Amino acid sequence: MGVTADLRTQLLRLVPDEKRVSDGESVLDLHAADFSHHAPHRPDVVVFPESTQEVSAVLAWADGEGVPVVAFGAGSSLEGHVIPVAGGISLDLTRMNRILELRPEDLTATVQAGVTRLQLDAAAGPHGLFFPVDPGADATLGGMAATNASGTTTVRYGGMRAHVLALEVVLADGRVVRTGSRAVKTSAGYNLTHLFVGSEGTLGVITELTLRLRPIPELVVVARAAFPSVEAACRGAAALVAAGVPMSRCELLDAETIAALNAYKGTSLPESPYLFVELGSGGGGLADDLETTRVLLEDEGATAFESESDPTARARLWEARHDSLHASLALAPGSKMMTTDVAVPVSQLAGAMEHARAVVEGSGLRGGVVAHAGDGNYHVAFLLDPGDEESVARAARLNSALVDDALARGGTCTGEHGIGVGKLAYLEREHGDLLPLMRGIKELFDPHGILNPGKVLPQ
Amino acid sequence: MGVTADLRTQLLRLVPDEKRVSDGESVLDLHAADFSHHAPHRPDVVVFPESTQEVSAVLAWADGEGVPVVAFGAGSSLEGHVIPVAGGISLDLTRMNRILELRPEDLTATVQAGVTRLQLDAAAGPHGLFFPVDPGADATLGGMAATNASGTTTVRYGGMRAHVLALEVVLADGRVVRTGSRAVKTSAGYNLTHLFVGSEGTLGVITELTLRLRPIPELVVVARAAFPSVEAACRGAAALVAAGVPMSRCELLDAETIAALNAYKGTSLPESPYLFVELGSGGGGLADDLETTRVLLEDEGATAFESESDPTARARLWEARHDSLHASLALAPGSKMMTTDVAVPVSQLAGAMEHARAVVEGSGLRGGVVAHAGDGNYHVAFLLDPGDEESVARAARLNSALVDDALARGGTCTGEHGIGVGKLAYLEREHGDLLPLMRGIKELFDPHGILNPGKVLPQ
Repeated sequence: MGVTADLRTQLLRLVPDEKRVSDGESVLDLHAADFSHHAPHRPDVVVFPESTQEVSAVLAWADGEGVPVVAFGAGSSLEGHVIPVAGGISLDLTRMNRILELRPEDLTATVQAGVTRLQLDAAAGPHGLFFPVDPGADATLGGMAATNASGTTTVRYGGMRAHVLALEVVLADGRVVRTGSRAVKTSAGYNLTHLFVGSEGTLGVITELTLRLRPIPELVVVARAAFPSVEAACRGAAALVAAGVPMSRCELLDAETIAALNAYKGTSLPESPYLFVELGSGGGGLADDLETTRVLLEDEGATAFESESDPTARARLWEARHDSLHASLALAPGSKMMTTDVAVPVSQLAGAMEHARAVVEGSGLRGGVVAHAGDGNYHVAFLLDPGDEESVARAARLNSALVDDALARGGTCTGEHGIGVGKLAYLEREHGDLLPLMRGIKELFDPHGILNPGKVLPQ
Repeated sequence: MGVTADLRTQLLRLVPDEKRVSDGESVLDLHAADFSHHAPHRPDVVVFPESTQEVSAVLAWADGEGVPVVAFGAGSSLEGHVIPVAGGISLDLTRMNRILELRPEDLTATVQAGVTRLQLDAAAGPHGLFFPVDPGADATLGGMAATNASGTTTVRYGGMRAHVLALEVVLADGRVVRTGSRAVKTSAGYNLTHLFVGSEGTLGVITELTLRLRPIPELVVVARAAFPSVEAACRGAAALVAAGVPMSRCELLDAETIAALNAYKGTSLPESPYLFVELGSGGGGLADDLETTRVLLEDEGATAFESESDPTARARLWEARHDSLHASLALAPGSKMMTTDVAVPVSQLAGAMEHARAVVEGSGLRGGVVAHAGDGNYHVAFLLDPGDEESVARAARLNSALVDDALARGGTCTGEHGIGVGKLAYLEREHGDLLPLMRGIKELFDPHGILNPGKVLPQ
C-alpha cells in the first residue's frame, strides 16, 4: 500500500492529473485481466497518458526505477498479454484516441494507438474505404499491431503486418523513434516496423500508427453451404484457395458449433459442418466467382448452398459466425472460455481438425471448432469452470496435444493470438533455436526488462 | 597472393573440391561487381557451397578468423550489395539450386537459396501456379529475400515479405536456424523472418526458403494509354488504386523513355507519357474491370487506350516496358546506368516525378523516368561514363536531391533496391533515430562483423 501510494505520487509528477493516475479498486481490476481464462493479476497503478510525451516520461522514469510497464488497449487479447503478472504500471492508451490524419487519396490513415478499428472504419467509410483487419473484438489499433492481430478477412487482405506502414514507438528508456514511412514500399534498412508488430509490448510502446486502408468492395455476396464432414468442408476451402477465388472471408464452423448456435438462436440449421464464404469485387465478375464457388464446393459434397448479396440478409448470414462464441458459452453458464489457436498448411487442415475433434471428444470437455479455413487457422473453444483445477489441467493438456499435432504438420503454435503468458512453453517447442536471438533482441531494446515482463520469452 | 593462396588452402579443407574454391582471375572478376555503376572490388576467393553444412562450415571458420563473407546469387542487385568491398570470401550460392518440395495443394514451395524465380515459375506452372515477385532480372530467390525484392507486380501481390513463409539461415558463427513455418499465418514470437528478409546478407546467409505461390489468373488483359503529362498519368494510376481495380501491374514510362524506345525498336509511339496496366482475374469480371480502367484513365486525359488479351499480343505490349533499360543505354553506348529508387505516397507521385524531371533536365545528364506507379515508386535511370568523375558526382548530387524530395513528401530513400553501399548516407538521413537499434541488432547477430561488411549500416 505504501509502495503503491508512493508509485502514484511519483507518477503524478509526470502526469499531473488525479483522474489519470489511479489505484482505485475497480480501475485496478479492469486492468488485471483480458478476455481469456488466464489468471488475473492487478497492476499497482493505472496511468492514462494523453500524449507521446507523457508515455515517454512514464517509461523513462519506470526504466530508471525498474518498475514494470504493461501497455493496455481494449483488453481483448486471448493469451494474457495485458495481464501485469509482475504488477507495476498498466499504461492505458485509450485516451490517445485521435485519428491524426486520413488521406483518402493515398488510402492511408495515421492514428494514435488508442483508436479502435471500428472508430477508424467509421471515419474511412464516407471516403469509400475501410480498415480490413477484423479480429472480432473492437480492439485498439495499437494493441492489434502489438499482437499482430488478424482474423476473418486475413485470407484476402493479410493481417496487421500487411497494413502497418509506419510506427511511432516509445522505447523502454523513453526515447521516441519512428519506423517506416508513408510510402507503401520501403527497403530502408532492417525492418523494425515488422519487429515491433507482434512484439506484444515487450520491445516498446506503440503510440502512433500509419495504416493502409482498402476500398470498400462495390459488390459483396456471402455464401453458406453445409458439408457431410469437416474434412469435406476443409477440402472445399482448399479448392477455393487453389482456384484463386477472391474470397474476403472463408470460415468453417463444425457441427457442434452449429448445434450450439441452433440452441442459442432458436434456428434450425442442419447440424453439420458449415462453410461461410464472402466474395467481394471492385467491379463485375461477382456472379462468375459465386458460380465457381458453388461448383467447387458442391464437388466436395456441399449441400444447401445459399447466397445473399443484400446487406441486411448478408448480415443475418454472418450472425451465426459472430454469435458462435456466445452460443458455446451459453451451453455452460458460468464457465470461462479457453481458445486454442494453431495454424497448419491448408492441405493439413482437414486432418488437424479431425484430430482436434477426437481429442476434444476423448477429453470429456465440451467445445466447438471454428476455423479461418482459407488460412489453415483453427480454434477450439473449451468451456471451463475456472475453479475446477482438474478441468483446467485437462484443457491445458489438450492445448498441448493440438500444438504438437500442428507442429508435426508443419504449422505453428499460434496463428493469430500470440504467445502472451499462454504459449511460452510452445514457443520454445516451435522455435527453441531462435530463442537466443529473441532474448538478445529483448535485451537490446529493454535492458532493464521493464516492458511487459513475463510475456513472449520463456524464462 | 600468399594470403589468398593460404585462404584457399584453408577453405579447401572445408569444401574439398578444387573447382568449388576458386581464385581464378575471371571468377574473381565475376564476383567483384553487380549490375550497377558502383565501383567493383574483387573478393580474395570464391566458394561454391553445395549444402547448408558447407555454408555453415565456411561461416564458422571465417567467423573465427575474422574473414569477411559476402553471399552472392545472380549478381543482379543495383546498390552494390554483393560487392566484397573488404575482400574476403564471395559465397556463391548458385549451386544450391534445388527445388526441395513443391506443394500445389498448399500453394507453397521450399527451395534452396540459389533457385531463380524463373526456375521456380517453370516448376510451378504445370500446377497452374506462379511466383509473383518480379524484379525484372532472373534473380535467385535467396538474393531476392536478402534484398526484399519487389517490382512490377507488387501493386497486387506485395513483395518478398508477403511471400516468404519460412527461412533456413546460417548465422555468422555457423549455427543453422529456422524461422517461420509452412502455415500462412503465425504469431509465434518476434518476427525474425521479416528481419532476415531485407537484411542484405549482413545478419545471416539464407540457405533455404519456403515461399507462397499464387494461382495463374485465368484471364489477363494488358491496357496501354498515352497521357498529356506525367502528372495526368500519375493521377490515372492513383484513380485505379483508389477504385480497387485489381491491377497486377501499373507501370509508367515518361516521354523521354518512350522516345528512347522508339529509337531503339523502330516503333512510332507518340512521345508522351504512357501508362501500362495489367489486369488479371481468376474468373469473370475482367471486361468490367477493363471498362472501369478505360473510363478512369480517360477521365484523366488518356488517349490511344488500347488493350490486348491474346498472350502474344500482350507480350508485345509489355516489350516496351521490358526494353526501356536497354533502350536508354543505347542512347549513349559505353555508358553505365545509375538508377535512383525512391518511393512516395501515391498522391505525391506526380509532384515527385515532375521534380525529378526538372532536376534531370537541369543537370545536363540524360535519363528516363519509369515508375511502379501504383506503388508510388519511381526510378530515374541516368547514363554515366564511369570514367567521367564530374558526371558521376553530378549524378550523386541528383540522387541526393531526389531522396530529399521523397523524404519531404513522406516517402523513403529506397522503394525496392535497398541500401547496399549506395544509400548508406540516406539511411542515416531517413532513419537516424533507428540506427542505434539497427547497429545493436547487427552486433547481436554478427559480433565479429564478418557478414557483408560495409553494407546497410553507415560507419
